[in-house]
Amino acid sequence: MDNDHSSVFDLAAEAAGSNGGNNDLLLPPARFVGSPQRPSSMPFHKYVAYDKQVPFEYPQRTWPDKKLMRAPRWCSVDLRDGNQALVDPMDPERKLRFWNLLMQMGYKEVEVGFPSASSTDYDFIRLLIERELIPDDVTIVVLTQAREHLIRKTYEALRGAKRAVVHFYNSVSVLQREVVFRKDKAGIKQLAVDAAKLCKSLEKDAGNTDIYYEYSPESFSGAEPEYSLEVCDAVTDIIQPTPDHPMIINLPNTVEMTTANVFADEVEYISKNLKNRESIVLSLHPHNDEGMAVAATELGVLAGADRVEGCLLGNGERTGNVDLCTLGLNLLVQGIDPQIDFSDMAEIRRTVEYCNQIKISERHPYAGHFVFTAFSGSHQDAIKKGLEAREQAALRDNADLSNYLWLVPYLPIDPKDVGGSYEAIIRVNSQSGKGGMAFLLKSNHNLDLPKRLQVEFDRVVQHYADQTKREVHDEDIWRLFKDEYLPVEASGSTSTVASRALSDQADASLVRWGRLKLHNVSVMSGEDGSDTILQASVMDRGVGGSGEAVERNIRGEGNGPLAAFLNALESLDIRVSVQDYVEHAMAAGSDALAASYIECKIGADEGSQTLWGVGIDSSITTSSLKAIISAINRSER
Amino acid sequence: MDNDHSSVFDLAAEAAGSNGGNNDLLLPPARFVGSPQRPSSMPFHKYVAYDKQVPFEYPQRTWPDKKLMRAPRWCSVDLRDGNQALVDPMDPERKLRFWNLLMQMGYKEVEVGFPSASSTDYDFIRLLIERELIPDDVTIVVLTQAREHLIRKTYEALRGAKRAVVHFYNSVSVLQREVVFRKDKAGIKQLAVDAAKLCKSLEKDAGNTDIYYEYSPESFSGAEPEYSLEVCDAVTDIIQPTPDHPMIINLPNTVEMTTANVFADEVEYISKNLKNRESIVLSLHPHNDEGMAVAATELGVLAGADRVEGCLLGNGERTGNVDLCTLGLNLLVQGIDPQIDFSDMAEIRRTVEYCNQIKISERHPYAGHFVFTAFSGSHQDAIKKGLEAREQAALRDNADLSNYLWLVPYLPIDPKDVGGSYEAIIRVNSQSGKGGMAFLLKSNHNLDLPKRLQVEFDRVVQHYADQTKREVHDEDIWRLFKDEYLPVEASGSTSTVASRALSDQADASLVRWGRLKLHNVSVMSGEDGSDTILQASVMDRGVGGSGEAVERNIRGEGNGPLAAFLNALESLDIRVSVQDYVEHAMAAGSDALAASYIECKIGADEGSQTLWGVGIDSSITTSSLKAIISAINRSER
Repeated sequence: MDNDHSSVFDLAAEAAGSNGGNNDLLLPPARFVGSPQRPSSMPFHKYVAYDKQVPFEYPQRTWPDKKLMRAPRWCSVDLRDGNQALVDPMDPERKLRFWNLLMQMGYKEVEVGFPSASSTDYDFIRLLIERELIPDDVTIVVLTQAREHLIRKTYEALRGAKRAVVHFYNSVSVLQREVVFRKDKAGIKQLAVDAAKLCKSLEKDAGNTDIYYEYSPESFSGAEPEYSLEVCDAVTDIIQPTPDHPMIINLPNTVEMTTANVFADEVEYISKNLKNRESIVLSLHPHNDEGMAVAATELGVLAGADRVEGCLLGNGERTGNVDLCTLGLNLLVQGIDPQIDFSDMAEIRRTVEYCNQIKISERHPYAGHFVFTAFSGSHQDAIKKGLEAREQAALRDNADLSNYLWLVPYLPIDPKDVGGSYEAIIRVNSQSGKGGMAFLLKSNHNLDLPKRLQVEFDRVVQHYADQTKREVHDEDIWRLFKDEYLPVEASGSTSTVASRALSDQADASLVRWGRLKLHNVSVMSGEDGSDTILQASVMDRGVGGSGEAVERNIRGEGNGPLAAFLNALESLDIRVSVQDYVEHAMAAGSDALAASYIECKIGADEGSQTLWGVGIDSSITTSSLKAIISAINRSER
Repeated sequence: MDNDHSSVFDLAAEAAGSNGGNNDLLLPPARFVGSPQRPSSMPFHKYVAYDKQVPFEYPQRTWPDKKLMRAPRWCSVDLRDGNQALVDPMDPERKLRFWNLLMQMGYKEVEVGFPSASSTDYDFIRLLIERELIPDDVTIVVLTQAREHLIRKTYEALRGAKRAVVHFYNSVSVLQREVVFRKDKAGIKQLAVDAAKLCKSLEKDAGNTDIYYEYSPESFSGAEPEYSLEVCDAVTDIIQPTPDHPMIINLPNTVEMTTANVFADEVEYISKNLKNRESIVLSLHPHNDEGMAVAATELGVLAGADRVEGCLLGNGERTGNVDLCTLGLNLLVQGIDPQIDFSDMAEIRRTVEYCNQIKISERHPYAGHFVFTAFSGSHQDAIKKGLEAREQAALRDNADLSNYLWLVPYLPIDPKDVGGSYEAIIRVNSQSGKGGMAFLLKSNHNLDLPKRLQVEFDRVVQHYADQTKREVHDEDIWRLFKDEYLPVEASGSTSTVASRALSDQADASLVRWGRLKLHNVSVMSGEDGSDTILQASVMDRGVGGSGEAVERNIRGEGNGPLAAFLNALESLDIRVSVQDYVEHAMAAGSDALAASYIECKIGADEGSQTLWGVGIDSSITTSSLKAIISAINRSER
């Protein structure tokens, strides 16, 4: 081929912008509300649609009807493709740490470097072999260019390894054939064939190492699939793999150039038409230039691929290789064993960030700090209800909750399965509703607020969030809740079990306690069904709660302690009727505290207020009375 | 529906792990090299495959044969879905800054908040309206729950707006129907219908604002598509949109639950079967839980969607909403106008990071710091050749390079089209080859090294990279190059044009200059074809270059200055023959420096060395002589 690159640019000139030109005339009218979008100044005419660069149709595809059924063979290329894309490639300590992580996670195939091109890689491979760090069931892969001295050096690097894959490649894309290699199709195929022959002919240099081969028609995504097939078949003819000693044909989506379905079509075409298919491990090597590497890989597996090369958390040249963690955990949530241990994602993330010296995004699937967090109120509410429903179902089935079916809205995976907790699930900001606040009070303070109380308290939280315009932390919610509902002084010494909630009350009481405070109380109920008699001493600051505190002894009767207390309060000219009442133990055991929530109507019919009070006490009676006092104090504020 | 959640968990119990159980018996044998992968301890039995949760087949799909042809309608939900997912939601200053960015980029539809639920959102919408910050061709969208007081508050927030979309929703998924809403299908549909009726009935509250509607069957991805269709049709029946006043039906991939092709099937089914389709803007709202939101969106657009909701750079609940930047730029590289201005991605990234207070990954498509960078030597080499081929083609076509066709290996987009430069494209580390170094010397120092010289110098760079185990910066390469090839003192005063390269030489000379240094030279050539006579004075430190410098006057003859100089050197007992010779101007203009690269064989035949020398001088003659001296000095070191 001569120096005049007419073909590829001439073809492009005809096709550029052809998908984006004035084709509104060819398409049904665009539908939208309001005014249309406007043309931008982006130079779309410089670019050529993929189908114009690589015309290929495969209507006989079957992959869209397939489902994921098992884990493919995984090959980590972190120590090669990932490593070469780092500003500072890993030093031996980092490489070894990464290797150990991969071994712990269960990867059985790892591409470890390009030993003929880098002495760091060479030395690391020698270290793995000489220190016997490669388990018997793990296969290392080494990349090489097909030149005699490089292949010899590669085999030298492998000496003493039980088994290894020698990975050779050459670029086959339309563009690279012309502008990089300046060869025609036959010439590029010959490069691949010569490479295969050279590898085979030097194999004796490998000593006792059981050598397998991997061939990559590099820049596959930019080549005609029919041509890539022809090249792969030519290589297979030389290598002569068998079902018992297969070779790997690896299809790189070197540059992601179009929608993921097109890559899947190409993979299915190759898988269906490869010669000697039963002796070939068909592999994918997707990159993420258009942000679709995970999808391209999964569709490619549906389309027939056996094996996937990628990096943990998606490191690699430019936008990275496909993320092996996302792929594995996507299988898990389909009920499929990924055959890799992701049970400590925090440690995986830490190690990967340390070795690569690149931070993972907060929104990175399964690994980012925010990905199990719901800020939206409706999401929080649904998660809370979903977790409760799951608990109930597990209880009903007498099942271990941690291994029980996971079906929870907005949480596609149980955070605990990847080493997380539920604590970070719910975070409250000014955009949250009552669900999150209620969840936090339940999870962290054992308070299960009735729905209407949630609505009432939510106004307090919402106001605070709108004022501060910041995340509302659990501590903030608890402080707001105490300020609003629990402002009474500690009643003296407390047991260790009960101490926390009560001393929290004590802290709060330093701020204000409103009009009334319960001092002591005695309740007498006969066994004959007669009325309960209640006597109490309360501190009373009078209407508005702003006066001097005066001790008042009050007495009432009723068909239970609540009724008797309401009756007693009438002597202070306070009229309360109970609208709703909920009480629960805050923990298991007889010394557990009780929480009482009472919705009270306070005052005469005209001008009455309906609001909630909350009381916490080791006595269920006292907690109820405190709840009524809480409501009264709130009504006076 | 009662409190016993038997159905969803019972169904799940049957289906859990069914795709990942011992189905190796049902599948063809797995193909791999070496030992098989092993089962992990990941609890895959807790999870239910998507097709068991939502059984749906759509073999009549047509989307896989479609191509992307134009930009969909974009709606940014950064100020709503994105904002609600932040630890600290945006304050008004940040919101306004984000709004201004969206306006500059050309978005015509923006969801601006949930005004009935958050006073911050309410105030911001009032600010947009009252300060007349909404251009006439821009439509705002507000989210609301379908309760009377909330809808009234929503209309109140909109008062004075020219046009707005009121977006209401309810969750329709199998799981949420049961565990969150505890209603059957009819009950959930009724919620949607009631909401639509309520919105319509209160429309008069909206004053002169032209109200459109958007309905989202929330958690669409977890619902039977047939049921979602039924609910959407019921809503459409109430809203009664027309082609001239359409409504938006928005399909949320609320939680991404399976491969992207399944979502596309569902979208195509809805698009093909919706009642009154010509009056509906069919919209997608994809999330990224499985890392496939971009792919799901693109396939969904192929499947018939008109509109896409997302966030810039993929902010949003958990793993984020789909990234509008990646979607837009994926269109651009297909030759399609995204109808959005992405010409300054650095500014977009800065603003998004500032407003969201979340950093973007270095590998984020189109926006990360590393995504246009090639560290691999073979990639660098291909990029260098590709850029050169493109330049030549543009020159041939007499075209403006910046608007010329973009076809460059490993660079799917011209970095300049998104406000980048070529400077960051090539970075050199211990994993790089000669391509990167050669590119940097050419781009930054105007030195276009011959191929064999690249190979020679690459050993120097590679050695340095292996030693330091760090990125090799341009400065390092330039220093290594000067140390190796250019160690001569400055020849006195230099013009401003030439000063840089020459003073660089001067710096280098402080280190060492080897055996010979050219002092001055005179060349006489007759016009009659007689030999050139050259006289030169050189400083000579003797063999090895370690002795005292002695000035030597030498004289030689030959058929040109080079030959004459080689002849003259014989008097110093230095035998040099020229193997290859390349020279080029380092810039345009008569005062440009010349760079000479000469491959020399030095010494007698046995024990001779072949190596390159480099010379830079404003005189092409002197630069050649310096190149020969450079080779001699290197041979003595």
